[in-house]
Amino acid sequence: MSFNPRSLRRYFPILDWGSKYNKDTFTNDGVAALIVTIMLIPQSLAYALLAGLPAQMGLYASILPLVAYAIFGTSRALAVGPVAVVSLMTASVVGNMALQGTAEYAAAAITLAFLSGLILLAMGLFRLGFFANFLSHPVIAGFITASGILIAASQLKHLLGISAGGHTLPERIGGIIENIGDVNVITLVIGASATAFLFWVRKGLKPFLRAKGLSPRMADILAKAGPVAAVVVTTLISAVFQLQNHGVKIVGDVPRGLPPLTLPAFSGEVWSQLFGAAVLISIIGFVESVSVAQTLAAKKRQRIVPDQELIGLGASNVAAAISGGYPVTGGFARSVVNFDAGAETPAAGAFTAIGIAFAALFLTPLLYFLPVATLAATIIVAVLSLVDFSILKTTWGYSKGDFAAVLATILLTLGFGVETGVSAGVMLSIGLHLYKTSRPHVAEVGLVPGTEHFRNIKRHEVLTTPELVTIRVDESLYFANARFLEDYILDRIADDCDIKHVVLMCPAVNEIDSSALESLEEINKRLDDGGIKLHLSEVKGPVMDRLQKSHLLHDLTGQVFLSQYAAMKALGDVTKPAPSDPVAA
Amino acid sequence: MSFNPRSLRRYFPILDWGSKYNKDTFTNDGVAALIVTIMLIPQSLAYALLAGLPAQMGLYASILPLVAYAIFGTSRALAVGPVAVVSLMTASVVGNMALQGTAEYAAAAITLAFLSGLILLAMGLFRLGFFANFLSHPVIAGFITASGILIAASQLKHLLGISAGGHTLPERIGGIIENIGDVNVITLVIGASATAFLFWVRKGLKPFLRAKGLSPRMADILAKAGPVAAVVVTTLISAVFQLQNHGVKIVGDVPRGLPPLTLPAFSGEVWSQLFGAAVLISIIGFVESVSVAQTLAAKKRQRIVPDQELIGLGASNVAAAISGGYPVTGGFARSVVNFDAGAETPAAGAFTAIGIAFAALFLTPLLYFLPVATLAATIIVAVLSLVDFSILKTTWGYSKGDFAAVLATILLTLGFGVETGVSAGVMLSIGLHLYKTSRPHVAEVGLVPGTEHFRNIKRHEVLTTPELVTIRVDESLYFANARFLEDYILDRIADDCDIKHVVLMCPAVNEIDSSALESLEEINKRLDDGGIKLHLSEVKGPVMDRLQKSHLLHDLTGQVFLSQYAAMKALGDVTKPAPSDPVAA
Repeated sequence: MSFNPRSLRRYFPILDWGSKYNKDTFTNDGVAALIVTIMLIPQSLAYALLAGLPAQMGLYASILPLVAYAIFGTSRALAVGPVAVVSLMTASVVGNMALQGTAEYAAAAITLAFLSGLILLAMGLFRLGFFANFLSHPVIAGFITASGILIAASQLKHLLGISAGGHTLPERIGGIIENIGDVNVITLVIGASATAFLFWVRKGLKPFLRAKGLSPRMADILAKAGPVAAVVVTTLISAVFQLQNHGVKIVGDVPRGLPPLTLPAFSGEVWSQLFGAAVLISIIGFVESVSVAQTLAAKKRQRIVPDQELIGLGASNVAAAISGGYPVTGGFARSVVNFDAGAETPAAGAFTAIGIAFAALFLTPLLYFLPVATLAATIIVAVLSLVDFSILKTTWGYSKGDFAAVLATILLTLGFGVETGVSAGVMLSIGLHLYKTSRPHVAEVGLVPGTEHFRNIKRHEVLTTPELVTIRVDESLYFANARFLEDYILDRIADDCDIKHVVLMCPAVNEIDSSALESLEEINKRLDDGGIKLHLSEVKGPVMDRLQKSHLLHDLTGQVFLSQYAAMKALGDVTKPAPSDPVAA
Repeated sequence: MSFNPRSLRRYFPILDWGSKYNKDTFTNDGVAALIVTIMLIPQSLAYALLAGLPAQMGLYASILPLVAYAIFGTSRALAVGPVAVVSLMTASVVGNMALQGTAEYAAAAITLAFLSGLILLAMGLFRLGFFANFLSHPVIAGFITASGILIAASQLKHLLGISAGGHTLPERIGGIIENIGDVNVITLVIGASATAFLFWVRKGLKPFLRAKGLSPRMADILAKAGPVAAVVVTTLISAVFQLQNHGVKIVGDVPRGLPPLTLPAFSGEVWSQLFGAAVLISIIGFVESVSVAQTLAAKKRQRIVPDQELIGLGASNVAAAISGGYPVTGGFARSVVNFDAGAETPAAGAFTAIGIAFAALFLTPLLYFLPVATLAATIIVAVLSLVDFSILKTTWGYSKGDFAAVLATILLTLGFGVETGVSAGVMLSIGLHLYKTSRPHVAEVGLVPGTEHFRNIKRHEVLTTPELVTIRVDESLYFANARFLEDYILDRIADDCDIKHVVLMCPAVNEIDSSALESLEEINKRLDDGGIKLHLSEVKGPVMDRLQKSHLLHDLTGQVFLSQYAAMKALGDVTKPAPSDPVAA
């Protein structure tokens, strides 16, 4: 591998924006970083809790990964770190391998980040970003909605101050009902108040601040700091009344200091157990992240490079793994805050990392009395904004197949967990696509009198001749529909002894693969057996180029016509009423 | 379910042809049946051997299943029974569950036939025949070639008179090399002579008989009877010299009589172990059978009904399971013989069944001394005609992706067995298709001067205006390429501040699914953020119908134009040199 300056710049976007860095960009990035830091401290603690990990791992996952993304990432505004859905998936996967709270559990989460990082890096180096395309929009939408519900359900126990387990919705609800007798009233009051407050912050604080005369931007940023206010107030109450002595679960000791150097477990068994999940987490994290990054980049007519984003996110996850973190990706809410607060380069992320490192060094003792219920409230309010059933309505109106895919994804995710849900959604999407294209729209067409246009004989009054059948296929021809076309044509000619010519009209055929080619050869041969000639018309340039490499054109009993009109003129004994144009070639 | 006469006729094609049955058809069917019977006796014994089953199970599989197909099948010439590839797959699947030669082994083969029959029946009743389309032609061709090699390799040990096991090519070759010291010379002489004779029958007998003055049809039929000659001669030699006392393996006692009534094992465990394999066997058997049936039907302009063929084959397999047989399907060689010998209706199959039943009742004692090496020679000569590497050359020239799929199928089938090979081939075909359509051909187009045609700006001298970008997509828009289009358009507009309009030209877009719809909404929104309007042109009727159910047309910042020329006239400040036609609407 030779590293010329250009490929260096491809793999290290920092060389590009870094060379133009100046004092103004520094100021803007610094302000954005400060605001994101304030937002990220409670979030990273909460998501670590959601992943079933010690609180400090959330902080660790918000330091080195951000620096790595600043070096390798191409988005100017993406804020990387722990996010809700990936944290839920981490809990689900790692929970199958070790007991929550054990060293093995944390080690497995670290290994998962490492594997996911390697997978993302490999996908980036081999430019395999297109794999993410196999997740259709409805499947992602259904998955995110179901994940939001699962996450909210997983946090209910913290609001109630009870213990309950489970990975699926029925398990979680069952666990809560079973232990509902153990509810801790003080925890419930704190949790419910925090939840109500955060909902109000989200809906009511901004108008309130605007009414008080604040600028819209300031009001917006202050509203995002709502969780910090909830953290501060409930921590103070908890400390003053020593609530831990009244059964309220608090965060407790969070070790002070910078992230430790950690190494993933290099065990074949662990890797093979985690591999499938790591692929899923990588792809889902990548899809979410890229879609945020693209939205923000488009607003400033900037561009992001998806294959390099894979490298950026891969580096972030490897960085998370070697510094005591767990899987990370670009977060939606915090990236928007970063963008709105004026971040101009990925350096803002690096500055945020400094802010979080400062918090890890000096602020963790202040978090001792923070009630876990407050963090749970933060999570619930954040994820309920992800829940959006409108995708069911939209797809129902637009396409029943897509509706089936999204419904299956939601139900299977809720009923059997995240991995089953998203895998089933992907398979269903692919299956439905193949099914749809395997029964393409095929029309028998005839000439519209007085024109050179051909239309469906079932919908229009058109001219046809008994010895000529023209069939238009509105789909690329490939293995999934090759046999369909064979069946269709052989059915059409069976028992009809007038037919002497079949013309296949191909204006919408974008590709003919080897299977379809063989089917065409077969159709040609079988028609020949029955004394019928096969012709093609309106074959596209690239398809024709490809066909010229095959035997079909040589074996074809008929001809290839540039236009269907030319085919009709040559083959049909049609008396066209008053042709207004000269005949096409 | 109400059975009106029409649906009765759909499910029982026998009612259709049976009502027109007369003496002439009877004579023709009878002659064909006689010839097929003579061909089928050694074949059915040999394929049972290949499947690792007692010889009589080959005969049983050639009686009741043929009657069932005669009632339910739609092909006039298809000859059903044990075939090579399905026998190989049976051996491979059942070999994982029981030891060859045990009662469990035979019971598992019977259960496999039953399951496969149920699967085929279900696919037929629910009209799921399209599943077979997921097997692309190159994958089937590669699979058949590799199976032919595997089958020939599996019979080598019988030619040499040694014992050897294994399911993959390396295992089989290893097994032979390991035991090469045990070669039985007499067996080798019989086996090698029979093989040489059968090859000569295949290549040289027909010209020889023609030269002797026989009619081409008679010469052809006699050539097909070659295996019977080999069986008769080697059996006589073996009996006269009592070769079983010299280490030559003979068929031995084959129980006389009609098939016993058998029942499959109704065990959940067995069924779940066999289910995946039963699906594969069903689909591969169906694909092979339908392609033979269609070829023969087309020659007489008859039609077959693929979904009813599923029912016919399903009934045959259930019939095989309840009468001591194993999985069956339509065989290529014997169907061609049946057709050439003049079979006119499925009754020929029923008459063949009577012939085989006669053989099972009275001829089995004559088979006692038949050397197994002769049967092995029959198999080897038959399957080597399946081996055809030309598919590699064809696909290499036509499509590297298809080449990769066929090469992978061949190598994985040889190296890891039939199930792995064909599964990998299917997944690779689907993956490659998604990959190809996920990166569609997209061209920026401009106006060809003096016309209303638009062409690729990279290939032609065309007129464009800086504020208008027209993009033509040559593919249906769906989840696998939705993001590609987003990337493409956002890349195109990044850093180009002149652009005010983007037109998406859609003459080759046959479908827009929910994902692509969402991507278009997203593109629309992002372009709007950048002050650019999005327009569509030349949207097809069915696609437009669909779009009218969505929000896109309402949210679209631009317009939908019937023709690209209309779009250019409305949006571009183009000074078209000397327009020859009036402007389109």
